[in-house]
Amino acid sequence: MKTLKVGMLGAGVVGSQIARLLIANKSDLASRAGANLELVSIAVKDSKLKRDGIPAALLTNDAKSIVNDPQIDLVIEVIGGIDPAKELILTALKNGKSVVTANKALLAKHGAELYAAADKANVDLYYEAAVAGAIPILRPLRESLVGDHVIRVMGIVNGTTNYILTKMDENGAAFADALKEAQALGFAESDPSADIEGFDAAAKAAILAGLAFHSRVTDNDVYREGISKITAADVKVAKAMEMVIKLLAIAELTPEGAVSVRVHPALISRTHPLASVRDSFNAVFVEAESAGQMMFYGKGAGGAPTASAILGDLVAVARHKVNGGIGPKESDYADLKIAQIGQTKTRYLIRLNVADKPGVLESVAHVFASHQVSIQTVRQTGAGDKAELIVMTHSSNESSLSATVKDLKNLPVVTDVASVLRVEGVN
Amino acid sequence: MKTLKVGMLGAGVVGSQIARLLIANKSDLASRAGANLELVSIAVKDSKLKRDGIPAALLTNDAKSIVNDPQIDLVIEVIGGIDPAKELILTALKNGKSVVTANKALLAKHGAELYAAADKANVDLYYEAAVAGAIPILRPLRESLVGDHVIRVMGIVNGTTNYILTKMDENGAAFADALKEAQALGFAESDPSADIEGFDAAAKAAILAGLAFHSRVTDNDVYREGISKITAADVKVAKAMEMVIKLLAIAELTPEGAVSVRVHPALISRTHPLASVRDSFNAVFVEAESAGQMMFYGKGAGGAPTASAILGDLVAVARHKVNGGIGPKESDYADLKIAQIGQTKTRYLIRLNVADKPGVLESVAHVFASHQVSIQTVRQTGAGDKAELIVMTHSSNESSLSATVKDLKNLPVVTDVASVLRVEGVN
Repeated sequence: MKTLKVGMLGAGVVGSQIARLLIANKSDLASRAGANLELVSIAVKDSKLKRDGIPAALLTNDAKSIVNDPQIDLVIEVIGGIDPAKELILTALKNGKSVVTANKALLAKHGAELYAAADKANVDLYYEAAVAGAIPILRPLRESLVGDHVIRVMGIVNGTTNYILTKMDENGAAFADALKEAQALGFAESDPSADIEGFDAAAKAAILAGLAFHSRVTDNDVYREGISKITAADVKVAKAMEMVIKLLAIAELTPEGAVSVRVHPALISRTHPLASVRDSFNAVFVEAESAGQMMFYGKGAGGAPTASAILGDLVAVARHKVNGGIGPKESDYADLKIAQIGQTKTRYLIRLNVADKPGVLESVAHVFASHQVSIQTVRQTGAGDKAELIVMTHSSNESSLSATVKDLKNLPVVTDVASVLRVEGVN
Repeated sequence: MKTLKVGMLGAGVVGSQIARLLIANKSDLASRAGANLELVSIAVKDSKLKRDGIPAALLTNDAKSIVNDPQIDLVIEVIGGIDPAKELILTALKNGKSVVTANKALLAKHGAELYAAADKANVDLYYEAAVAGAIPILRPLRESLVGDHVIRVMGIVNGTTNYILTKMDENGAAFADALKEAQALGFAESDPSADIEGFDAAAKAAILAGLAFHSRVTDNDVYREGISKITAADVKVAKAMEMVIKLLAIAELTPEGAVSVRVHPALISRTHPLASVRDSFNAVFVEAESAGQMMFYGKGAGGAPTASAILGDLVAVARHKVNGGIGPKESDYADLKIAQIGQTKTRYLIRLNVADKPGVLESVAHVFASHQVSIQTVRQTGAGDKAELIVMTHSSNESSLSATVKDLKNLPVVTDVASVLRVEGVN
C-alpha cells in the first residue's frame, strides 16, 4: 500500500486531536483512503513544549519547511487567521500539495485566490470543518444538492452565541450575566467580540452563500449585527409570543435573483426546527426547490468534532491522490449580485415605550403607513408611564423599516424605541 | 463543452420529475457538471402513453437498448425492484456506463455484486436517493464521516409508518384508522405491507449499516418488526411517560464489535431530536466517536425530493467522466460479524394485565429476577379486573427478555401480556 506523507500547521485544541487520531486510527484510515497516512511534521510556535500524545520528533518551528517539503503530499492547516496561514497554504498548493483547512476567516476573505492556486496546481482544497464543525454541511451543499436549486440557507453556526441566548431563554438572564457564565465554562473567549458581534458567523455565512448559490461571496458582502444589544426584556417578549431569539446566518435568493447574506439576531417560532437547537449546538436549515426543507444538526466546534471533519476531508483528498480525480473546484459561474441590506425583506417586531393616552395607536400606525410598512398585529401591555406597544409587521424591506423607526423616535407620544428585531422562518 | 448522453430506466413519479428537471435546469446542470447532460432515451412499459413534459421521441419500450447503447454515458435507474433492474444495471455497468439508482431493495440484497461490476468496469455506482430521499445521508456517511468511527445510526426512514404513528400520537387513533387515513391521502399504498411491516426500512437499514461500519450487510441480516401491532393503548402509555413511538432503523456496534442491525417500533423520549420528526418526514441520527451526535432531517420520499438526490449523484458521476477519478467503491474491509437479535441489548417497557391482589408484584418481580432482567420502574394503574402493571427494565438482552415474557404469560396472576416495546435513545 502506498504511503502519503502528511504535514500539519498548528497543534492547538484541534491539531492535537488530529495528531492523536491519525496515530490511533492509522489502520482504519489507511483502509479507507487506500494509502497509509503518515503524519511526518507539525509546525508549532514553540517546538520545545511537550504535547500529550504527539512525538516530540514531529514538531518544528519552521512552518515553511512543511509547505516546501517535496516529500509531503498533504497539508492540514489549523493555525487559523489570515497571516501566516494564507501564504503557507498558497505555497503548499503551488507546490502540488492538497490542503485541508478549517480556516473560515481566510476562506471568506481570500477563497477565490486559494481556489485559483489549487486549480492551477490541480490539487484539492477542502474545508468541511470551516463551517459548523463536525456537521457535514459543505459537502452536502456542494455535492449532494448540486443537482437542485438552493433557495435559502439559515444556520445557527456559532456555538458561543447560541449558548448565551439559550441561557437567556432558560433563566431570563441578562446578556452580560449569560456571557460571564459562558466565559467561566469555556464556551466564550475572554475577548468574545468575534463571536458575539457576529464576525465568526459572518465568515461562515459567506462560505455557505458561495456554495449554495454558485457565486462568489466574501465576508465583506455579509451584513452583520451581533447579539450584545439583546436584552432580557426582548427574550421575555419572544417567549410570551412563543418564539425564541437566535443568532442566524442567512443566505437567500431575493425575488430579483440577487444573494442576500446576513448575520443578525432574529425571532423564530418555537415550532421551527432551529428553535430546538440549544446550548452550543449548531444546525443549518436548507430549503431547496426540489428537495424541500432539510436540517443538519450537531456539534459546531471543539477539538474532536472539528478533527472528525478534517480527517474526513483528508481521506477524500488522499483517495484522489491514489485514484486520480479531484474534488469540486470553485463554482462561481452564476455570478450573482449581492443584495443591499436596505432591499432585504423580512418581518419585524418592534417594541415601543409610549404614553398611555388616546390617539397613541393612531399616531404610531400613521408612521408605519407613511412608509408602506404593513402592520400584522399590535399588542399593548402595561399602562400609564410603563405602557408598551409591541408591533409585528408584515414582510417589509429594511430601508422602509429603518425610515419608520427613525420617525417613530421623533414621535412625541413615543418615549423610546426599546427594540427592533427581525422575525425569520415565515414568509 | 463536452456532452454526456443520459439514458433513464423508468418514468414514474420520480422519473418524470428527473426528466422535467434535466430539461428545465439544463444550463445550471451543465455548468455544475462541466458537461451538457443530454437525456436521450427513457425506457417505459408503454412508450405510446403520453407523459407531461417528456418528449414522446425519448420514450422506448426497450430497456436493453439503453444499457447496450454505446452512445450513452450515464444511466439512471428508477424502475425499482429486483427484476429486471438488476440485470439492466449490471449490463450498463459492464458496458462502462456509470449508474445512478434509487433502488434500495436491490442494493440491500445484491449490493456486493453491483459494486463488483462497477469496480471491474471502473465506473461509478451512486445511490443517495435509496435512503431518506432528498436528505444527504449516504454521502455524509461514506465521505464526510470517513475519518471518524461511527458508533450508531438510528433513523426514521419510512415516511408512511411515521405518518401513521404521528396520527396515532396526535389523535389517539387506532392503527387501522390511521392507516386508512394515510391510504386516503396517498401516504400509504393499497397494499401497505412493505411499509408497515418494515421491509422498506430494513433495506435502508442494511445500506446504512454497511456504509457506517465498512462491512457487508444485506437485508437478510436485518431483524425486522413492523408497526401493525401497535395499539392506541401503547401510544397512550407512551404519551403518559413523555415518550413517543417511532419505527426506528438502527445500526450499531455491539461492545463485542459486531453489527446489530434492526428495524422495530420503539419508545423514545419526547426530548430526543428524533421525537420531533413528524408526519412523513424522515431523519437519521448518527453518533460518531469524534463528531458526537448529529441529525439529518428532511423529506424522505416524493418525486421532486428523490429527483433532487438523483440529479446530485448524476452531476457527481458526470464530473468524474469529465475530470477523471471515481467515487468511493464498496468499503467492506472491516468484515464484521452480524449480532444475533438475542444478544442485542436495550431497555424494554412491558404492559401486563394482572389480578389486583396482594403478592402480584412479588410474583412478577421474581420472574424478571430469575432471568437477570433488572427492573427500573413499576407503575400500577387501574384496580380490580382492570389492573395494569407497567414495567420499565434496565438494559437487557433480547433473549433474557423473551424468556421473561414467556414465563410472565404462564404466571397465574398475569391475565395478559398486553405489549412489549423497546425503549431506545438512552443507554
